[in-house]
Amino acid sequence: MAESALSGLKVVELGDFIAAPYCTKLMADLGAEVIKIEPPAGDSARRYGPFPNDEPHPEKSLLFAYLNTSKKGITLDVKTPLGRKALKELLKDADVLVEANPPRVMEELGLDYNSIKGINPELIVTSITAFGQTGPYRDYKATELVSFHIGGLGYGTPGEIEEPDTHPPLKAAGHQGNFQAGITAASSTMCALFAREFSGEGQHIDVSIQEPLLSAIASDIIAHTNRNETPTRIAALALRVPGRKPFIAKDGYVTLTMVQDHFWESLKGVLGHPEWTELDIFNERESRRDNMDALYPLVEEWTQQYTMEELYQKLQVEGHIPSSPVHAVEDVVNHPHFVERGTFVDMEHPQIGEFKSPGPAYRFTETPWDASSPAPSLGQHNEEVLCGKLGYSKDDVARMRQMGVI
Amino acid sequence: MAESALSGLKVVELGDFIAAPYCTKLMADLGAEVIKIEPPAGDSARRYGPFPNDEPHPEKSLLFAYLNTSKKGITLDVKTPLGRKALKELLKDADVLVEANPPRVMEELGLDYNSIKGINPELIVTSITAFGQTGPYRDYKATELVSFHIGGLGYGTPGEIEEPDTHPPLKAAGHQGNFQAGITAASSTMCALFAREFSGEGQHIDVSIQEPLLSAIASDIIAHTNRNETPTRIAALALRVPGRKPFIAKDGYVTLTMVQDHFWESLKGVLGHPEWTELDIFNERESRRDNMDALYPLVEEWTQQYTMEELYQKLQVEGHIPSSPVHAVEDVVNHPHFVERGTFVDMEHPQIGEFKSPGPAYRFTETPWDASSPAPSLGQHNEEVLCGKLGYSKDDVARMRQMGVI
Repeated sequence: MAESALSGLKVVELGDFIAAPYCTKLMADLGAEVIKIEPPAGDSARRYGPFPNDEPHPEKSLLFAYLNTSKKGITLDVKTPLGRKALKELLKDADVLVEANPPRVMEELGLDYNSIKGINPELIVTSITAFGQTGPYRDYKATELVSFHIGGLGYGTPGEIEEPDTHPPLKAAGHQGNFQAGITAASSTMCALFAREFSGEGQHIDVSIQEPLLSAIASDIIAHTNRNETPTRIAALALRVPGRKPFIAKDGYVTLTMVQDHFWESLKGVLGHPEWTELDIFNERESRRDNMDALYPLVEEWTQQYTMEELYQKLQVEGHIPSSPVHAVEDVVNHPHFVERGTFVDMEHPQIGEFKSPGPAYRFTETPWDASSPAPSLGQHNEEVLCGKLGYSKDDVARMRQMGVI
Repeated sequence: MAESALSGLKVVELGDFIAAPYCTKLMADLGAEVIKIEPPAGDSARRYGPFPNDEPHPEKSLLFAYLNTSKKGITLDVKTPLGRKALKELLKDADVLVEANPPRVMEELGLDYNSIKGINPELIVTSITAFGQTGPYRDYKATELVSFHIGGLGYGTPGEIEEPDTHPPLKAAGHQGNFQAGITAASSTMCALFAREFSGEGQHIDVSIQEPLLSAIASDIIAHTNRNETPTRIAALALRVPGRKPFIAKDGYVTLTMVQDHFWESLKGVLGHPEWTELDIFNERESRRDNMDALYPLVEEWTQQYTMEELYQKLQVEGHIPSSPVHAVEDVVNHPHFVERGTFVDMEHPQIGEFKSPGPAYRFTETPWDASSPAPSLGQHNEEVLCGKLGYSKDDVARMRQMGVI
C-alpha cells in the first residue's frame, strides 16, 4: 500500500492566512507535495499571533507554524511578469492549484481559470474567497466576524439566555468559517480528482468562506423558508436547545440533556427521585420544554452541590445522559480521552521550539497522517524549487531576489 | 467529461441524525450511488424538527429531507441475522461504508472493520462517532452541546462581553460539530479512494465528531501549550477580536474592523475625521486595542445614527472596511449576494412541498452539484435494492417485512 494517502499528488498554493493554507495542509499532511507560494513580504499569518512570549516575529507565528506543516515554501511576487512566468511553469506539472485571491485580482493578472487552463488542461483550480467567484460581493474582503454575522449565526447566539432580544448577538470563539472553508475546499478538490480519473480533465472549483458556515444553521434556514415565519431570537433558542445555558457546578459549569423521555427518566434516578420530579408539568417532553423556567433552577440546586467531574461521573458515566463539563483550553489539552486518542500532537519547529497542535481530525488504518516537516521559513525552498524543478540558475535566483521578485 | 464528479462510486450508509447522513449527502449530490440503511423505526432525524406547521410526522422532517437528498433508502434491522446478511451482501459490491454506531455495538454485531474487511478488501469503512474509535469515551454518546463544551468552544463564548468571567459560557447557534464532522469524513474518504487507486486496498477511517471542532480554536490550543499559560476568558477575548461585540445601529447591529492601521485610517475618513480620532491613544494598533473601552462608545455614537444598510454602504462599499450587518435568518435567505449566487436552492418533496435549503458549499465548472432526488420515504427502495440488486424474491421481502427485519 502507498505509505501516504496522497503520495504523488502535486499541489501549488497561492493562498494566505487560514482557509487556503488549511486546505493544502490537509493534503500535505496526507502525503501530497505542496509548494506554497508567499509574496516576498510573507503570508499574513506570519504577522498574526499567537507568538511565543507574545513577541511578534515573522518566523515564530504559531498559527503559521500550525497551518503550513509538510509544505515546501517559496516566495514569488506574482504581480511581476517574472513571478507570473515562474508560477505558470510550476502549474504545467501540477495537479491542483489552491488560490485565495479576489477574482478581480486574478483576472487583472491574467491568472483566472480561463486564462491558465490552456497551460495544463488537467489542472484543478480551487479558489477560496470570502464570498465566492460570483455575486455582487465577490471582490469584497471579510473577517471571521463578518462571515459569522452575515451568515446569521450570531443572531442565534445572544448574550443573555433570559433576554436574548435585548442582548447583543455574539460571535462564537475561533475561526469557524475559515477552517470549515479549508476542509470543504479539500473535500471538493478530492472529488474533482476522482472525476478526473475518468475524464482526464481539470476544472475550476469555487468555494466561498461564507457558505460552509450556513450548513450549521440549515434547520433554521429550512424552517424559515418552509413556514415563511420570522423566528424571534427567543423562539430560535427555545425551539431546539433548552439546555443551551449550562448549569452551575461547584467549580464551573456542566451541560446536561433532559428533554428526551429516556434521558429525563434516567435523570430522575440520578437525582434520587425528589418529589418535584413527579410533577405533571415535567411529565412530557413538550411540557418540560414549556416549563423550562421552573425546571432549570430545581436541577441547578442539585448541580451546584457537586464539582464538574463528580457531575460528569453521575450523569454521563452512571446515568448515560449526554453531559459535559464546560472545558477551558487547558482542560481540553489535558483531557484523558484526548490524551489517549492522541488528539493533540507534539510539533517541533526550529525557531519556535516545541508546541502542541490539533492533529488530524481522522485516523487512517493504512495511510497514516504525518506532519512530516515543520512549516517553511520565508523562501526556504526558493533554490530547491526554482533551480531543482524549473531549471533556473543560481544567478537567476540571485537576480530575482535583488529585483524583489522572490 | 463525467456528468457528475462521483459517477460510479457506490456508497452504503449505516448512519443516523446529521454527521454520517451529511457526509453521504455530499457524495450523493455529486453523483455517487448512496444506499441509506435505516432501522425499521427510521432515522432519528425523522423525529427531529423542524416540521411544516410544527406538526411532527416521520415523512415531513425538514432536517431529514435536507440531509438525505439523492439517496436510495432501505430499511434493515442489522441487529437481526437476516438484516446483517443483507448488509454484508450490499458491502460486497460497495466502495464505501459510512457508519455511525458506537464501536462496542459494531463489535457485538460482528460488523467492526476487522470482521467485515474479508467480505471486500477494497471497501473503505468510514466511522463517524461522538468521540472516535479509541480512548475511554469511545462508546459514549454526545449531543451538539456536549461536543461544543468538551472542545472548549463555549469557554471563549461568554454571555456578556464586559464581564465574561461572571457570565455563563454559551454554545453558538447550530449543529457546528455534526456538520463539520460530515464534511471531514467526506474529505478523508475521498483521500482514501485516491490512495486506493494505487494500492487497490481499502482501509478504516476513524472520525470523531469532537475533533474537527477543535481546529476552530487551534490558535488558543497552540498558544496555551507553547506558553504553558492558562488564558483567562477576558484575555482570550481581548487577544484576538476586539470588535467581537457588534455596534448598535438604528435598526440592529453591525460589525466593523478597526484594529489594523489601514482599516483605522479608512474608518477615520468614513467618520469624517472627528477630533477624537487624532488622539494619540488611538494612534497605534496596540494602543487602540488597549483603549478599546474608550474607543467603542465613540464609534458607537456614530453607528447609532444610521441603519445597518447605510452603515454597510459607508463602511464596506465606500470605505473598504470589513463590516457586516448582523443578519437574522430571513436576512440571510433574501440577501442579494446569496440570491445572485444561488446559495440556497429550491427543493421539492412529495410530502412536504417546497422548501429552500443551503445548496452546495462549492461550485464545479464541469461536474455540477445536483440534489437529483428528494430524500427517500421510509423503506422506499426496499424492493428495488433487495430484489433488483441482491436477487431476493418479492416473497422474501414480504416475509422480511412481517418479521420486522425491514
